[in-house]
Amino acid sequence: MNDKQLQKVSKALDTFKIETASWAFADSGTRFGQFYQDAAAIDTPDKLADAGQVHQFTGCCPTVAVHVLWDFNKGEDPKAIAKVAAKHGVSIGAINPNVFQDQAYKYGSFGNPDPASRKQALQHVIDSIEIGKAVKSQIVSLWFADGSNYPGQANIRQRKKWFEECLKKAHEKLGPKQLMLIEYKPFEPAFYHTDIGDWGMSYVLSKKTGPKAKVLVDTGHHFQSQNIEQIVAWLLDEDMLGGFHFNDRRYADDDLTLGSIDPYQIFRIFHEILYFGFESKKMPSIAYMIDQSHIDKPKIEAMIQTVMMAQELFAKAALVDHEKLRVLQTRCEQVDAEEILRRAFFTDVTPALVEWRKKKKLAANPLLAFRESGYEARVAKERKARRQK
Amino acid sequence: MNDKQLQKVSKALDTFKIETASWAFADSGTRFGQFYQDAAAIDTPDKLADAGQVHQFTGCCPTVAVHVLWDFNKGEDPKAIAKVAAKHGVSIGAINPNVFQDQAYKYGSFGNPDPASRKQALQHVIDSIEIGKAVKSQIVSLWFADGSNYPGQANIRQRKKWFEECLKKAHEKLGPKQLMLIEYKPFEPAFYHTDIGDWGMSYVLSKKTGPKAKVLVDTGHHFQSQNIEQIVAWLLDEDMLGGFHFNDRRYADDDLTLGSIDPYQIFRIFHEILYFGFESKKMPSIAYMIDQSHIDKPKIEAMIQTVMMAQELFAKAALVDHEKLRVLQTRCEQVDAEEILRRAFFTDVTPALVEWRKKKKLAANPLLAFRESGYEARVAKERKARRQK
Amino acid sequence: MNDKQLQKVSKALDTFKIETASWAFADSGTRFGQFYQDAAAIDTPDKLADAGQVHQFTGCCPTVAVHVLWDFNKGEDPKAIAKVAAKHGVSIGAINPNVFQDQAYKYGSFGNPDPASRKQALQHVIDSIEIGKAVKSQIVSLWFADGSNYPGQANIRQRKKWFEECLKKAHEKLGPKQLMLIEYKPFEPAFYHTDIGDWGMSYVLSKKTGPKAKVLVDTGHHFQSQNIEQIVAWLLDEDMLGGFHFNDRRYADDDLTLGSIDPYQIFRIFHEILYFGFESKKMPSIAYMIDQSHIDKPKIEAMIQTVMMAQELFAKAALVDHEKLRVLQTRCEQVDAEEILRRAFFTDVTPALVEWRKKKKLAANPLLAFRESGYEARVAKERKARRQK
Amino acid sequence: MNDKQLQKVSKALDTFKIETASWAFADSGTRFGQFYQDAAAIDTPDKLADAGQVHQFTGCCPTVAVHVLWDFNKGEDPKAIAKVAAKHGVSIGAINPNVFQDQAYKYGSFGNPDPASRKQALQHVIDSIEIGKAVKSQIVSLWFADGSNYPGQANIRQRKKWFEECLKKAHEKLGPKQLMLIEYKPFEPAFYHTDIGDWGMSYVLSKKTGPKAKVLVDTGHHFQSQNIEQIVAWLLDEDMLGGFHFNDRRYADDDLTLGSIDPYQIFRIFHEILYFGFESKKMPSIAYMIDQSHIDKPKIEAMIQTVMMAQELFAKAALVDHEKLRVLQTRCEQVDAEEILRRAFFTDVTPALVEWRKKKKLAANPLLAFRESGYEARVAKERKARRQK
Repeated sequence: MNDKQLQKVSKALDTFKIETASWAFADSGTRFGQFYQDAAAIDTPDKLADAGQVHQFTGCCPTVAVHVLWDFNKGEDPKAIAKVAAKHGVSIGAINPNVFQDQAYKYGSFGNPDPASRKQALQHVIDSIEIGKAVKSQIVSLWFADGSNYPGQANIRQRKKWFEECLKKAHEKLGPKQLMLIEYKPFEPAFYHTDIGDWGMSYVLSKKTGPKAKVLVDTGHHFQSQNIEQIVAWLLDEDMLGGFHFNDRRYADDDLTLGSIDPYQIFRIFHEILYFGFESKKMPSIAYMIDQSHIDKPKIEAMIQTVMMAQELFAKAALVDHEKLRVLQTRCEQVDAEEILRRAFFTDVTPALVEWRKKKKLAANPLLAFRESGYEARVAKERKARRQK
Repeated sequence: MNDKQLQKVSKALDTFKIETASWAFADSGTRFGQFYQDAAAIDTPDKLADAGQVHQFTGCCPTVAVHVLWDFNKGEDPKAIAKVAAKHGVSIGAINPNVFQDQAYKYGSFGNPDPASRKQALQHVIDSIEIGKAVKSQIVSLWFADGSNYPGQANIRQRKKWFEECLKKAHEKLGPKQLMLIEYKPFEPAFYHTDIGDWGMSYVLSKKTGPKAKVLVDTGHHFQSQNIEQIVAWLLDEDMLGGFHFNDRRYADDDLTLGSIDPYQIFRIFHEILYFGFESKKMPSIAYMIDQSHIDKPKIEAMIQTVMMAQELFAKAALVDHEKLRVLQTRCEQVDAEEILRRAFFTDVTPALVEWRKKKKLAANPLLAFRESGYEARVAKERKARRQK
Repeated sequence: MNDKQLQKVSKALDTFKIETASWAFADSGTRFGQFYQDAAAIDTPDKLADAGQVHQFTGCCPTVAVHVLWDFNKGEDPKAIAKVAAKHGVSIGAINPNVFQDQAYKYGSFGNPDPASRKQALQHVIDSIEIGKAVKSQIVSLWFADGSNYPGQANIRQRKKWFEECLKKAHEKLGPKQLMLIEYKPFEPAFYHTDIGDWGMSYVLSKKTGPKAKVLVDTGHHFQSQNIEQIVAWLLDEDMLGGFHFNDRRYADDDLTLGSIDPYQIFRIFHEILYFGFESKKMPSIAYMIDQSHIDKPKIEAMIQTVMMAQELFAKAALVDHEKLRVLQTRCEQVDAEEILRRAFFTDVTPALVEWRKKKKLAANPLLAFRESGYEARVAKERKARRQK
Repeated sequence: MNDKQLQKVSKALDTFKIETASWAFADSGTRFGQFYQDAAAIDTPDKLADAGQVHQFTGCCPTVAVHVLWDFNKGEDPKAIAKVAAKHGVSIGAINPNVFQDQAYKYGSFGNPDPASRKQALQHVIDSIEIGKAVKSQIVSLWFADGSNYPGQANIRQRKKWFEECLKKAHEKLGPKQLMLIEYKPFEPAFYHTDIGDWGMSYVLSKKTGPKAKVLVDTGHHFQSQNIEQIVAWLLDEDMLGGFHFNDRRYADDDLTLGSIDPYQIFRIFHEILYFGFESKKMPSIAYMIDQSHIDKPKIEAMIQTVMMAQELFAKAALVDHEKLRVLQTRCEQVDAEEILRRAFFTDVTPALVEWRKKKKLAANPLLAFRESGYEARVAKERKARRQK
C-alpha cells in the first residue's frame, strides 16, 4: 500500500461507525435448542457493558441497538438505561420494538385481522418511539414477523392496508430527528407469505408512510442469489436507503458473523455506497447496524470479529479508484473495470488498519487485545455465579 | 359439481381470454442446440395460421402477441400482417420490440453506455409503438435483456437513469389506448445484474414513466421460492398490474408449458385476481399472455395444452367461495380457509369445461379434436417441402 | 370415477399406513417464539392419546414415532409407554434418538472432535435401539444436527470418518428386525456445512454402515428446486429407500402440513413408488412418517388434515395407468405421458375416499367428525387446568 | 509475505496446471443470441493457437480440452490435430464427446428410449475414447444433457439402467492410462429432471461403471447455496474425485470467468484439496479444467484472467497453516480456525506470483503482456478477413 492508499483508507475509516446490538451479547439459538455460554450477558447492563468493550477495543461502535421488550422494563425511565450505556462509553442506538412474541401476535401485529392485536402493536411501536425520544436515539427499526403459513389463510391485500394505516399513525408520532426504518424479509417465521417480503414492499410502504420512513436492508433477508448491491444502488438513487442489518448466510437467514460466507458481496455493497458518495459528491447518511445471532462463537469475540471484518471490507472498498472505474464503465472495458474492484478487494489493508488504530490509540489487533484483557473470563465467572443464585 | 358451480365456471370462462405468442410456433431451443420439428412455423403467416388453429379449437385465444423483429419486415405495412391474422380468425395482440439481438446491444439497450445504442433501441421501441397503432394493438410489452455479467462492469445507478429517460420518451409516443408493460427478470441473459431485476424495479420505473406504464409479470422470472401471488396481490392493490407472461419452471426461466411443474401456484395467482375482483366489485383488466418455449413438445399441441390448463385452473379458481373465505380469514380460521382453496383446486372441473365448450360449439377436448383434424401432419409435409427448397 | 378406479383406490388405501409423530402434538415454534395452545399435549400420555384420536378417525395411523429424550424417562421401562399407546389403540413406531440438544453436542454428536461427546451420542443411540427392541419398534430414525457454522471450523473428512465409525458400532446393536434410517439435511441448525448434507451422503454412509441401514427422505430437507421424486426413484432402484418424513415447505425446512404448498410434488413422489411397485411386481416396504411442526394450526386437526391429504394424494397416484404410461414413455409421446399423470392428479378422488372410509366404518370426513367429537375442547380444558397447577 | 510463505506459494504453483478448453476461444452465447468477436477462433487450429498463447503467457496451461464434434473431422487422423497443438506449444487434454446436439438425441443419448440413439451415442463415446488413445489424452469427460422436461415423460429408473449399461460398455474400451470422468448437473437443458442430476448420482454410476470412472465437478452445476467444498472433501475421502470444470455463477449455470462472483468459495475448494494432500501425505491427482462461456469478454483475455485468478486463489490456499488448523479444529477453537482460512485468503499473494513468473521467465502480468503482444489485434484482422471469404 502506498501513502495515498493509506490516507484513503484512514479517511474512510474515520467516517465508519457500525452499531452493535444488545441482543447479540445474550445467549441465543435455533429452534432446535441453545448452547449456553457462561460469559453471555444476562441482563441489559451486561449487554451494555459488553458493547462498551467492543467499542473500547475497536473505536467504531459508539452506539448499541436495543430491543424494547428485552431491554426496557415497563414503567421504568428509559433514561436510566441510557445512563448505564454512558457509563460504559456507549450510547443508545436504534430502538427495536418487538411485535412478534406476545401471544396476541399469533396471526400478526400490524397485519392482524384482530383490531385489538393491531392496536396493541401500534401502541408498542408508539411507546418505542417515545423511548427513542427519551434516550435521544434517532432511529426506530421496524421488523415485522407478520405473514401467514398456508395459502388462503390471509387476505394479503387487506393486511397490506392495515400496514399502511398503522405505519402512518406511527409515523405521525416521530420526533423531528427520528427516522423510521422498515425492514423486509421473504420468509421465516411466516413460511407461506411475509407481509413485507422484499425491498419493493418496504419501498411501497415507506413511500406511503411519509418522509421519515426509509428502507432497512438486512443482508440475510434475501432470496438465494439475489443481487443485494443492486438493491442498495437503487435505494440510494431513490434516496430511500435508511440502513443495514449486517450478517452473513449460506442458505436462509443464518445470522452468521459478517463476511464469513461471502466477503466479496459485502465489499460490493460498501463499494456501491462509496461510489454513490463519489458521484453525488456527498456521502449518504446510512445506519450501519450488526444483527447477528451466532449460536456458538463467544459473543464478544464474535462481535469484534464482525466489526473488524466490516472495517476491513470498508477499507478495501475505499481503495476502488472511482475516477478510473467511471471511465472504464463508460467505455465498456469490462475486464479492466472488474479488475479495479478485484484489486481493491484483494489488497491487504491490514497495514492501513493497524496505522489507523495506532492513530486512535487502539490496539493493533482488537480481538487479541480483548482476549488479553481477561474481560471474558472475568464476566464468565461472575455471570455464572449470578445465574446459580 | 352442482348447477351453481357449473354456472360460476361458465361465467368465469366467458371472461377468460389468453393470448398466444407467434414465436412459440417456431423452432426454438436452448443454448445447447435445437431439435427441429417439420411442422414448426417458418414465417409469420405460418405462425398466424397456427395461432388461428389454437383459437379455433379452444375459443379463447383471439389475439396473438408478435415480435417486431421476427414478424414484421422493415418498410412493409404492418397492416398486411394484421390482415393475414384476420384471415386466420385472430388479431394482433401485444407488440414485443426486440432490443437484445442486434450486435449494438452487446452492452445493453436502454441502459447501454453508448448513446448510439440507446438511440437505436428507443427508435425501435417507438417504431414498435407505431406498429401497435397501425394494427390496433393496445399493448406494447417491454422486456430488456440489459444488465452486466461481472461486478464492477456497470454503473448500476447511471443505467437506471438512462432507463428512466428512454422509457419516458417512449411513453410520450403511446396512443390514447396503448399501454406499456414493463417486464422484470432477475437473471439471464445477464448473469451478474439485470437492469430491471424484480417487480420492485419494474414498479419504480413504471411509476416514473407515466400513467400508461404498468408491470408485466412473467411467472418464470422470479427467484426460487418467491411468492408470486403476493406480488400479484400487491400490484393489483396498487393498480399497477398490466399483464402476465405465463409459463412454468423448476429451476430457472425454463419456459415450460403452464402448470406442468406447479399447477397450484398458477391456481393461486388466478385466485388472487378473482378475489380482488370480488372485493373491489370490478374485475381488473389484465392481459393474459402465454410465453412458452418448449423445446420438444409439438408446438401447436403444446399451446393447446397450455390454454386448456389455463382454463382449467382459472375455472378451479372461480369455484373459491369468496364470501366464506373472507369470513374465515377475518376469524383466522386457517385450516378451513386453506381448505376452501384446496377443495376448489381439487374439484374436477372437466364437466364444466366440456359444457362450456359445447355452448361455444367447440369440441369437448380441443387437443384431441386438433389431432384428429390432421392439420399438423398437413403443415408438416408442406413446411418440410418448403424448407428443402 | 368408474368402478375400476374406485377399486384401484380402495386397494391402494388398504395398503397405505402413515405414522404420526408424538412431538407434533406438543407446542412448538420457531426461533422467534412459540404460540401456545390449550389443547397441546403436555406429556407423552397426552401425545399418545392424541395420536390415538388421529388413528381412530382416519384408520391409517396405527403407529406413532417417538422421541427418546422427550418421551422416555431414564430408568423407566419403555414397555410402560408401549402400554399407554396400546390403551389408545396405537403402537410405538420409529424411535428417534436426540443427539442435538444436550450441551455436549455444541460441536456435534457422531462428528464431534471430542471423544466424550461422540461416546455419549453413541450410547444414546444404542440405548434408543434397546428401547426399540423393548417396544417392538422396527425403525430407528437417525437425524444429526451435526455440522459447522463457519468455513475452516471443521475437518469435514475427519468428521465423516467419525460418523462411519459410530454408525457401524450402532448398526451392530440392531436386532434382527430393526432397520436404521439415516436422514440428510443440507442446512439448519448448522449453517455452513451439515455432516450429512444430501441423499448422496446418506447413501454413502448407509452403504458403509451395513445391510440394515437405509436412507430416510424428509421432503423438507432439500435444496430449492431439487427434484425429490428422482431421488426417490434412484433410491428405490438401489434398494436403499427406508422411509419418509413428510411435510411441506416454501423456502427452507418449514415443516408445514403435507401438500400445503406443492401437492403435485407429493403426488409425483407417490407415483414413483407405485410405478416402481408395478414394474418390479412388488411394493417396496417404506416407512411413511409425518414430521410436521406447524406453529399455529391446532395440533390434532393439522395432523388429521395431513393424513387426509396424504391419503388423497396417494389415491390419485394409484389412478395412474401404468401400462399405458410405460408405452407412452417408451414411445416418447411426452404430451400424452404427462397427461396420464395430470389426469390422475386432477381426478376428484373424494368419492373413493368416502367409500373406503365407509367400508372401514369410519366417518366420511375425519376432520369434521373429530371436531364434532368435542375431544379438543375437552382436553384443552383439562390440560389448561393441569398447566396451571 | 515472508520467505517461508513465498516458498510455499512457489512450490504450490509449480504443481498447479489448469487445462483450457478449445470451445472457450470460439464465439458463444445464450439462447437469446450471440455477440460476435472478430478475434474469436473460427476453427480448431485457431483455438489451439489461442490456447498456445494462454500457455505461453501463464506457463501453467499445457493442455487443451477438445470437443470431438467441433474439433475433429470424421475420417481424419486425430493425430493431425495433436500436431497442430504441439506446434503451438500445447497438447491435447480431455476428450469431450458430444451426445447432445444431433437430432437423434432429442430424447436423450445413453438414456434415450430409442435403442438406435443409445447405440449412436455409445459409438460416439467409444470413438472419442479411440481419439483419446490416438492423441495420448488420459481423460474422457462425459457430460450428458439427458433428462426430461415434463413430469411423467420419462421412466427415470429405466433410463438409469440404460446409463449403467452404456457406461459399462464404454468403460471396457478405455486404455490402461485412460480415465472416464462423469459430470453431473441438476438442470438445463433438461428442465424437469436430469438423468445425472447431482454428485450422488455421478458417484453411484461411477462406482457401478468400474475402477476408471470418477466424478467430475463443474462448479456451476449445483443448487444455489450448495456447499461444493464439502462434496469435494467427500469425493477426495472416497477417492472418487476425477476433476473439475471451473467457472463461476450467480443464479444458474452462468459459466462466468473463475472467481468473478464468489472467489472465497473457489479458495475453499482449493483449500480442501490441499488440506487433504497434507493429511494424506500425498497430493491427489485431479484434472483442473476451465469450462467458461463468457458471452462478452474478449476470449483470450478472459481465459488468461481466469487462469491468473485460479493461480492466485490456489496460492492463497497454499498459505493455510495446516498444522495449526488441525489443532484448532480438534479443539473447536472456531474463531481462530476461521481466521486461519481468512488470513490466507486475504493475503496479497501478488509478490509471490510475480516472483514465480520471473523464475519461469514469464511476464509479471500475463494479461498486460498478452495485450502488449498485439496478438489479438493481429488475429482479429486475419479472422475477420477469413470470415468474409
